[in-house]
Amino acid sequence: MSTVYFLSDFGSSDVYAGVVRSLIRQKAPGVDLIDLAHDLPPGDVTHAAYQLYSAQPYLETGGVVLAVIDPGVGGERRALAVRGKKLWYVAPDNGLLSLVFDLDPPQGAWELEPSKCVQAPVSNTFHGRDVFAPAAALLAAGFPAAWLGGEVDPGKIQRLDLRINPGPAGRVLTFDRFGNAISNLRPNGLPQAVEVAGRRLPFVKTFSDVPRGEALAYLGSAGLLEIAVNGGSAREKLELSAGAEVRLVTSSANRND
Amino acid sequence: MSTVYFLSDFGSSDVYAGVVRSLIRQKAPGVDLIDLAHDLPPGDVTHAAYQLYSAQPYLETGGVVLAVIDPGVGGERRALAVRGKKLWYVAPDNGLLSLVFDLDPPQGAWELEPSKCVQAPVSNTFHGRDVFAPAAALLAAGFPAAWLGGEVDPGKIQRLDLRINPGPAGRVLTFDRFGNAISNLRPNGLPQAVEVAGRRLPFVKTFSDVPRGEALAYLGSAGLLEIAVNGGSAREKLELSAGAEVRLVTSSANRND
Amino acid sequence: MSTVYFLSDFGSSDVYAGVVRSLIRQKAPGVDLIDLAHDLPPGDVTHAAYQLYSAQPYLETGGVVLAVIDPGVGGERRALAVRGKKLWYVAPDNGLLSLVFDLDPPQGAWELEPSKCVQAPVSNTFHGRDVFAPAAALLAAGFPAAWLGGEVDPGKIQRLDLRINPGPAGRVLTFDRFGNAISNLRPNGLPQAVEVAGRRLPFVKTFSDVPRGEALAYLGSAGLLEIAVNGGSAREKLELSAGAEVRLVTSSANRND
Repeated sequence: MSTVYFLSDFGSSDVYAGVVRSLIRQKAPGVDLIDLAHDLPPGDVTHAAYQLYSAQPYLETGGVVLAVIDPGVGGERRALAVRGKKLWYVAPDNGLLSLVFDLDPPQGAWELEPSKCVQAPVSNTFHGRDVFAPAAALLAAGFPAAWLGGEVDPGKIQRLDLRINPGPAGRVLTFDRFGNAISNLRPNGLPQAVEVAGRRLPFVKTFSDVPRGEALAYLGSAGLLEIAVNGGSAREKLELSAGAEVRLVTSSANRND
Repeated sequence: MSTVYFLSDFGSSDVYAGVVRSLIRQKAPGVDLIDLAHDLPPGDVTHAAYQLYSAQPYLETGGVVLAVIDPGVGGERRALAVRGKKLWYVAPDNGLLSLVFDLDPPQGAWELEPSKCVQAPVSNTFHGRDVFAPAAALLAAGFPAAWLGGEVDPGKIQRLDLRINPGPAGRVLTFDRFGNAISNLRPNGLPQAVEVAGRRLPFVKTFSDVPRGEALAYLGSAGLLEIAVNGGSAREKLELSAGAEVRLVTSSANRND
Repeated sequence: MSTVYFLSDFGSSDVYAGVVRSLIRQKAPGVDLIDLAHDLPPGDVTHAAYQLYSAQPYLETGGVVLAVIDPGVGGERRALAVRGKKLWYVAPDNGLLSLVFDLDPPQGAWELEPSKCVQAPVSNTFHGRDVFAPAAALLAAGFPAAWLGGEVDPGKIQRLDLRINPGPAGRVLTFDRFGNAISNLRPNGLPQAVEVAGRRLPFVKTFSDVPRGEALAYLGSAGLLEIAVNGGSAREKLELSAGAEVRLVTSSANRND
């Protein structure tokens, strides 16, 4: 029995996530079900894609990631089960898995067919309950993906325009709740400085390496370049928004590959 | 050992829900404890009653629902254990179980007597910890309800004025976090349209069936009629509040019973 | 296998807490992991210290409390494992354990040395994942604390200035989400009244003992004196802030020790 890791934009004050938990426990008795996060910004696929990227290295090999950030529910988007090298992923085909695929490339993909894996009627608005949860439970219980639907081309899964890259040019992916900006840059070496929003910021180890109120760039806990203000919000102080350009300033001495 | 399903208006940033979890695990070792939802609007019994109604079909037969939305704690309201046809319910007697009883009618009820099921002194403000959690744990561990207190008349349990009904006249029960209005109408057939707040709205399958910014009516994932604005908040755009009148517009061709 | 009780100021909408959960489950298979609370006010050590104090009596003897409110992460503060009489505590050395030590005095303490208990590189900003979670998992799995680091003097663990005391003079520790003020006073007898912010408030059993809109003092569910406004926020109505003076007014007839 595998572990199921559950991520969604369901609010903690609604029973949506609780109903999904209940179904998984019934359909895969004995499964270990771990809440990765809920209450994600509603429908914000990029933010959720970053959260998955950041969690992936710490999940158990063979586990099943159930990711329900699904603004297109009831429309044309496909519902997928994807086998990576390390984990399984059950999610809508809307770009949500883009970033995690850089760490765990897709080896196979199946389009969920509710008629195969679901007994009850399927609602138009809650596929987390009616489609994704049953599929994740079946995978966790060891059933083959072919029971869930027909195999499709893993190369045709939706990707976001933004991809993790070593730079020097990148963009702001999203923000955390402190207003720190997370970029799509995973530098190969340590830069000397970072340019963003018309400023040059020092690249340092941690917040307290600059005076309070000053901006800084550093490597975040997911290995991506982040931009912060010590004791403040980079989002507000630097007037950053998602998609803003970020550029590494390096010298040859700093480059290690 | 049954599953305990836990719903409350305790904030996620307080330890109240955590303390209840800890007690249930100690008093019913091996129990499967599933968080249905917390952080519900404080003291909003109608909202919580809807949440229970919406989750009930997806909970395991024989489970124990522990529902703590208890604005009258320390006052005169009774604390109850109720046996439905499918599930047990442990809750204050304040209307919280009104709607779920339409799906799972009460077969028996017991008034919790703390002196029977609690060893420690009972606080005036935290019966979730001191009364409801021990009672739910005992039921989940298989003890008979008579150990918890004296039997009472299930017909005298508090009910809300609003009941689920097939229409044509109903009211807004509550809202979800997107501003969608949930009504107490469970239509027997599909209506042609819905009247609310002086407007006639089309009845459609899902959001994208109307242009962005337009209002619509549809069947929500709990089978109840809901009112939304595609890409917006029906609560704000239509200036709706809880209790607002909602009316189904049907033609005989559409009625199937 | 012990129970791990997890408390943090990680947001529910980030995967930080989920990653910690995942690591603990992998490093201590079969452990019972209970979320005490998350989303605590970021970096508010006093608030978190009160939450631990309030939960402690309801946690299972031999359990491991993992408390990550760590505004000094990456700086000079020590990371500790502490053995109390009842529970183990894994936390940064920043005062977080001050109040719970009044209930469960420290019997021994060890400074976590990441090189001993961690295989992966340690980030500058996420010691919950890289240091505290592995340590808590090892303790829960029964490994000796000496495997985690060198023994240190439990008398030199950081303490907050505010300590729980029987009065008559105390201060406001923090507030709950209803605006009720929680003080550091644990009266030996019941006071007649309480003075705060230039007013004298009646000491009563519960909210409904005073008219709506009136202020009151009472014993909260953790046994500490609290100040509230019936149906309102004491924080706003009485313009209270953390640290405000609170004084018990007693008569000799009321004192029982």
